[in-house]
Amino acid sequence: MRYSLVFGKTRREAPKDEVAVNAQLLIRGGFIDKLMAGSWTLLPLGLLVINKINNIIREELNKTGANEMLMPLLHPRDVWDKSGRWSNKDVQQIMYQFKDIHEKEFGLSFTHEEIVMYILSKFIQSYKDLPVKVYHFSTKFRNEPRAKSGILRGREFMMNDLYSAHVSKKNMMQYYEEVKKTYMKLFKRIGLDVVVTEASGGVFTKEYSHEFQVFSEVGEDEIIYCPGGDFAQNTEISSVAEGKQCDLGHGPLKKARSIEVGNIFPLGTKYSKDMKVFYKDEKGQEQPIWLASYGIGPTRVMGTLVEMYHDDRGIVWPKSVAPFHCHLVAITRDTTHVTRMANDVYEKLQSAGIDVLFDDRTDVSAGEKFADADLVGIPVRLVVSEKTGDKIEWKGRKDKDTEFLTPDDVLKRLT
Amino acid sequence: MRYSLVFGKTRREAPKDEVAVNAQLLIRGGFIDKLMAGSWTLLPLGLLVINKINNIIREELNKTGANEMLMPLLHPRDVWDKSGRWSNKDVQQIMYQFKDIHEKEFGLSFTHEEIVMYILSKFIQSYKDLPVKVYHFSTKFRNEPRAKSGILRGREFMMNDLYSAHVSKKNMMQYYEEVKKTYMKLFKRIGLDVVVTEASGGVFTKEYSHEFQVFSEVGEDEIIYCPGGDFAQNTEISSVAEGKQCDLGHGPLKKARSIEVGNIFPLGTKYSKDMKVFYKDEKGQEQPIWLASYGIGPTRVMGTLVEMYHDDRGIVWPKSVAPFHCHLVAITRDTTHVTRMANDVYEKLQSAGIDVLFDDRTDVSAGEKFADADLVGIPVRLVVSEKTGDKIEWKGRKDKDTEFLTPDDVLKRLT
Repeated sequence: MRYSLVFGKTRREAPKDEVAVNAQLLIRGGFIDKLMAGSWTLLPLGLLVINKINNIIREELNKTGANEMLMPLLHPRDVWDKSGRWSNKDVQQIMYQFKDIHEKEFGLSFTHEEIVMYILSKFIQSYKDLPVKVYHFSTKFRNEPRAKSGILRGREFMMNDLYSAHVSKKNMMQYYEEVKKTYMKLFKRIGLDVVVTEASGGVFTKEYSHEFQVFSEVGEDEIIYCPGGDFAQNTEISSVAEGKQCDLGHGPLKKARSIEVGNIFPLGTKYSKDMKVFYKDEKGQEQPIWLASYGIGPTRVMGTLVEMYHDDRGIVWPKSVAPFHCHLVAITRDTTHVTRMANDVYEKLQSAGIDVLFDDRTDVSAGEKFADADLVGIPVRLVVSEKTGDKIEWKGRKDKDTEFLTPDDVLKRLT
Repeated sequence: MRYSLVFGKTRREAPKDEVAVNAQLLIRGGFIDKLMAGSWTLLPLGLLVINKINNIIREELNKTGANEMLMPLLHPRDVWDKSGRWSNKDVQQIMYQFKDIHEKEFGLSFTHEEIVMYILSKFIQSYKDLPVKVYHFSTKFRNEPRAKSGILRGREFMMNDLYSAHVSKKNMMQYYEEVKKTYMKLFKRIGLDVVVTEASGGVFTKEYSHEFQVFSEVGEDEIIYCPGGDFAQNTEISSVAEGKQCDLGHGPLKKARSIEVGNIFPLGTKYSKDMKVFYKDEKGQEQPIWLASYGIGPTRVMGTLVEMYHDDRGIVWPKSVAPFHCHLVAITRDTTHVTRMANDVYEKLQSAGIDVLFDDRTDVSAGEKFADADLVGIPVRLVVSEKTGDKIEWKGRKDKDTEFLTPDDVLKRLT
């Protein structure tokens, strides 16, 4: 893509009221724009990152046999009354609920358990119709009194939520463990080291849940964990003291701040029983459906990545989710052969299927272009200029030194 | 994809209250499920069709230099107050507006002109920052008193909306004409013949607009048009009588019912002036920005396709938007070699990059499988059974006759 045609270029300064590093760098880099506290437009570069994150999630969930679909965001009250959650005081603090001009009551999606169960009620008759594993990528709305931490916590944000329905606790737990492993794998592919942490079920269930936590000083959560990786609990529920020896002898338990990037809930039969959605077993007896739900916030993941991977010059995207593979910079004062060579390299890279951002601007200095490339944070910077001759200057975003390579060698390294 | 693993299989009957053919067939085929009047879940098969439609739109819009991004759905009142539309009585009939528990006022996206202008206000300083061409695929909410016509008219639906901003009327109209041609091209690729029709600007502008209409008896619109293709007007604004001779001698003007699948608006400087978003020209003078907007409803397009392409057995998808290229049906009573051959064919097709739906169910009769294949409407049906030997039975969805081909010939035809 030609940078001259990209909407949402770099900005010199982030608004002063944005203190979070993720918001500052994402705003300055031209990835996001703020509509109001906790609500952001994904500008073209930001959407590219989110698409990369979502495709990794999609690929890994599909391997578990899950199906992608898309559920509505505006929910009629009656479906939420069936579970009793419409009138739950904690839910009412989070969920936007309102009446339209015809006095009909609606809520905005803050989660989709009720809607999934309502859909299942139409498709599940017998044990033969189970298991069901469905997910979507869509918008969640939560009435956060103080939406802060940049894009880590929003009023409106993107979520990938997966729901699985089963005939028994055993089957549910089997798939739950499979998804737990899948989450660890996909977070690793995205570039995040996660700690699986026991936590409370919040407004979802009285049972426990598992959170996927990333160590970070800016995180809103606090976990207590064993350095050996055997144990981690959110301090919200933990009764274990910091410094206590781990049973397996890995040294004393530690406490740390962290960001929750995913959360999974073995909900059990609560929703089935409350909403009266049953299946018939092999003997024709009605049985409750075992439900579990699983969620990842792709926009929060993007923010977390920026918190983890940046330096004083800008973002340093992991390769797997970078908006482009490489950032081609043409340094030219209208020198015909430099422009021609840069265009040639751009065409060649594109033909080879390499995502390339081409800074083809003619009214911006070399210094500004280099600063922009560092800020935007694409893993590889390629420079074509008078100085590079028939070679291309290669520099990794984290590298200090540059190399001069032939166009063919650049292609080889990138494919 | 194995049909045994697809959530949302065919249903014998559509709910009796659904009279629209599009809803009946899409429900029975397992493409959509109704949450409430005018609000639908896109089940896995339905989402595949929408993705195909959206990818065609995306490809064609990108060719015009437009950038994809993603804007929020929950809008603060103050941004809408800037254009004055928050308090417009016609808008208030359509837009969901509400207060949260903290008395803060929000509206749900029924369109995005205000949000686009607000974003532009932060990125456009001078004429050098124009033109801007941005679009997104996202959710629109409209408080339809009687959401009917299946998925042709919804309370909540998917929309692709494009916004372009320019320095002058001339530039705006140039791009407007380019998008008009792009729309004609993309609708053709999707499988729809559209008539470009002059229409009113509704709650968007006092100026005219252009609608993209598809002839259909179930359409809510009525147009008057010249059979030669020179002229078409929505009867809402037309003062021309049916039967009048066309100026170019193409025979008398005709009247017909139609479905509006797209609408484009040369909005002009209204939003720029109302919202006080200006750019500086070459002399440093403040000038208003010329805005145009363009919209397509992918879910409505899907419904329109079903209205146009179906027979008494089910849907007949155009190839370009069919959820899969071919529907492989294994007819077997656990006959090992038939199962093995069907699995082989499935693997081969997938390796060749062909989207295939594989009906691998073992508890469903041949008759039911054939009926399901006709209902789901994938362009090519392939059958592997005892009778087909080492050949595969090929049948186009619209064909009466079948052919027997070798696996290699099937591959050749599909690639």
